[in-house]
Amino acid sequence: MTQTTLDPIPDASLPTMPGQRLARGVCRHLRALDFAVIEEFVPATGLRVDVLALGPKGELWVVECKSGRADFQSDRKWHGYLDWCDRFFWAVDQDFPTELLPEDTGLILADSYDAEIMRMGPETPLPPARRKVMVQKFARHAALRLQALRDPAAGISGV
Amino acid sequence: MTQTTLDPIPDASLPTMPGQRLARGVCRHLRALDFAVIEEFVPATGLRVDVLALGPKGELWVVECKSGRADFQSDRKWHGYLDWCDRFFWAVDQDFPTELLPEDTGLILADSYDAEIMRMGPETPLPPARRKVMVQKFARHAALRLQALRDPAAGISGV
Repeated sequence: MTQTTLDPIPDASLPTMPGQRLARGVCRHLRALDFAVIEEFVPATGLRVDVLALGPKGELWVVECKSGRADFQSDRKWHGYLDWCDRFFWAVDQDFPTELLPEDTGLILADSYDAEIMRMGPETPLPPARRKVMVQKFARHAALRLQALRDPAAGISGV
Repeated sequence: MTQTTLDPIPDASLPTMPGQRLARGVCRHLRALDFAVIEEFVPATGLRVDVLALGPKGELWVVECKSGRADFQSDRKWHGYLDWCDRFFWAVDQDFPTELLPEDTGLILADSYDAEIMRMGPETPLPPARRKVMVQKFARHAALRLQALRDPAAGISGV
């Protein structure tokens, strides 16, 4: 079956990778919930979360975006993310076999353009000292990337 | 005397306002000192600082950029900024009459491309509760602006 394109305006900003497309939709939805978001955040050496969101009350949510069964089943690190957030969510598209996902984790249904929270992840509040470190790292990560976009000559290396 | 342009490459990203040009040079220098920076930050209603910088140890510096004598002398709000940072600096260009500036404030000499700290502002550590609020606001401000640049369709309003 040939796919019919209904949208006449090409979306030049659409990310190429399926996981990044889900992340964009997730970030748009979280923005509407008054969360500030960053992507590809490194909480500790060897860990990289797809989306870290900072809520209006300082709550920190992690969202891992999975493009399909293989992407989920090859993930050996996700348990490690639980220690770095107040709530943890998976984000998947409508074709994902959600029965694979652990029931005691959050679930977000997403596409490139928007998302919807289907199940809240349980609340596991961060210890205050770790929260402080995380918010400060969030702040620096976001500001360094912002400066790199606004002023590419500022000599920013990867953050 | 006609100004001679030595640089053959036009700098398309050069801000148009003199104060913003100083801010760019300040931000580049602070970046080299491992500070993350944001511009035009509102710490409280009615206040807007030109540059807020977050250092590697969590220190918060405010830099006010002044394009000339009149710009400085018309500023009725700067005393209010002292309560929102660990150190306060003025940033001015080489033609600014620096004898106008209070001696117990920091001084940065800047142009559009770089800057240099001439005098450190005295250290006045923020109370922990206020620091926590400021770092969180810094984080949200930076992330919201970053998302607005990366994904303009995300429906970001002014932050």
